[in-house]
Amino acid sequence: MAVAEQAGVVTPGELVQQLRWRYATKKFDPARKIPADRWDALEQALVLSPSSFGLQPWKFIVVTDPAVRERLRPASWNQPQITDASHVVVFAHRKDVSVADVERYVRHIAAVRGIPEESLEGYKQMMAGFVSRAGQGLDINAWAARQLYIALGTFLTSAALLGIDACPMEGIDPKQYDEILGLDAEGYRTVVVATAGYRAEDDAYATLAKVRYASTEVVAHR
Amino acid sequence: MAVAEQAGVVTPGELVQQLRWRYATKKFDPARKIPADRWDALEQALVLSPSSFGLQPWKFIVVTDPAVRERLRPASWNQPQITDASHVVVFAHRKDVSVADVERYVRHIAAVRGIPEESLEGYKQMMAGFVSRAGQGLDINAWAARQLYIALGTFLTSAALLGIDACPMEGIDPKQYDEILGLDAEGYRTVVVATAGYRAEDDAYATLAKVRYASTEVVAHR
Repeated sequence: MAVAEQAGVVTPGELVQQLRWRYATKKFDPARKIPADRWDALEQALVLSPSSFGLQPWKFIVVTDPAVRERLRPASWNQPQITDASHVVVFAHRKDVSVADVERYVRHIAAVRGIPEESLEGYKQMMAGFVSRAGQGLDINAWAARQLYIALGTFLTSAALLGIDACPMEGIDPKQYDEILGLDAEGYRTVVVATAGYRAEDDAYATLAKVRYASTEVVAHR
Repeated sequence: MAVAEQAGVVTPGELVQQLRWRYATKKFDPARKIPADRWDALEQALVLSPSSFGLQPWKFIVVTDPAVRERLRPASWNQPQITDASHVVVFAHRKDVSVADVERYVRHIAAVRGIPEESLEGYKQMMAGFVSRAGQGLDINAWAARQLYIALGTFLTSAALLGIDACPMEGIDPKQYDEILGLDAEGYRTVVVATAGYRAEDDAYATLAKVRYASTEVVAHR
């Protein structure tokens, strides 16, 4: 079957312009909220994010309740983005991904594609073999946590292309987050946070020159 | 100072459309190469990718030499994308990030922004305190590796927006990659790979229904 050509929706110049425009926003305008259609697209970007095997070992907790955000702020070195941004997303990984998660995923593939589960036996065995190495040279929770960082990159890039400001935040206490959000009981563990919204007009960081090493230093060609 | 409004360069619908269009390409058209202006933008996307503290603990090795790619393929479960894609990028993290890396970064910030290094002393001490916890509850190499996954998400999303196909690949032998590319001597370690180019017309995976859990399952609201 011929595959439709896809021209893309941005030019190379637009892409680079937006990635240069973005920065880790320190001060959000608390009065400005992300419109629903844009936020929905960002949630879809999270859902559509790639992951190893497509296993999606994750949950994204969108926190809008001001009372919950007040409780998260002290667990985040008191950084104001937690209460002032339009939206807060907590990226959490599934704890101890197991063969049961693989089986659930295979059932879902079969249902979505309308094919018998048996036709996926080889794929299932490969994934089961992988997750079964947990503890034997494979830190399955570290592996799962890394997948959340793909989703973080997807989210930050998507926001930049939409003209929405964001701030990735590693400076949080994951255990306190788990407790406040009740994630432990659900089998998930906090990895990292992103806040999103619109920069305050007086965020001094917005106008600082972007600091990156030269391409010649970080990109090598072989 | 007033900050310029930024409208974004894609609509919510375009963003979601492109993220649905992308998939882990299994079979590339070996005859089609990514034009130079698009590839340059993807390299810039890597350079501009966010990282913790902005420390950029990474190197991106773009492999175009067919002879090198022939050697990488057996270190990648013989997956054909390694030789058939237009471009191969190896994402490598800096090994054992230390205070020396922090100092180099602070010197670079000062140079780019034309400010005295001393004005960054507080920021430097914070970062130095962080990396000095290596081995004491902090796996600094795991932390650095996670940053590469932000760059991977940035790269895959950027490619999708440009209408370029890609495939993230964890199924590689990092040690063999390090050896073939001589990364060990340079103080870097292979984390993950992405191949990019254009899907072959007969890649069966291109037309399969996308499998994702429902938003209601992976996105929670608090």
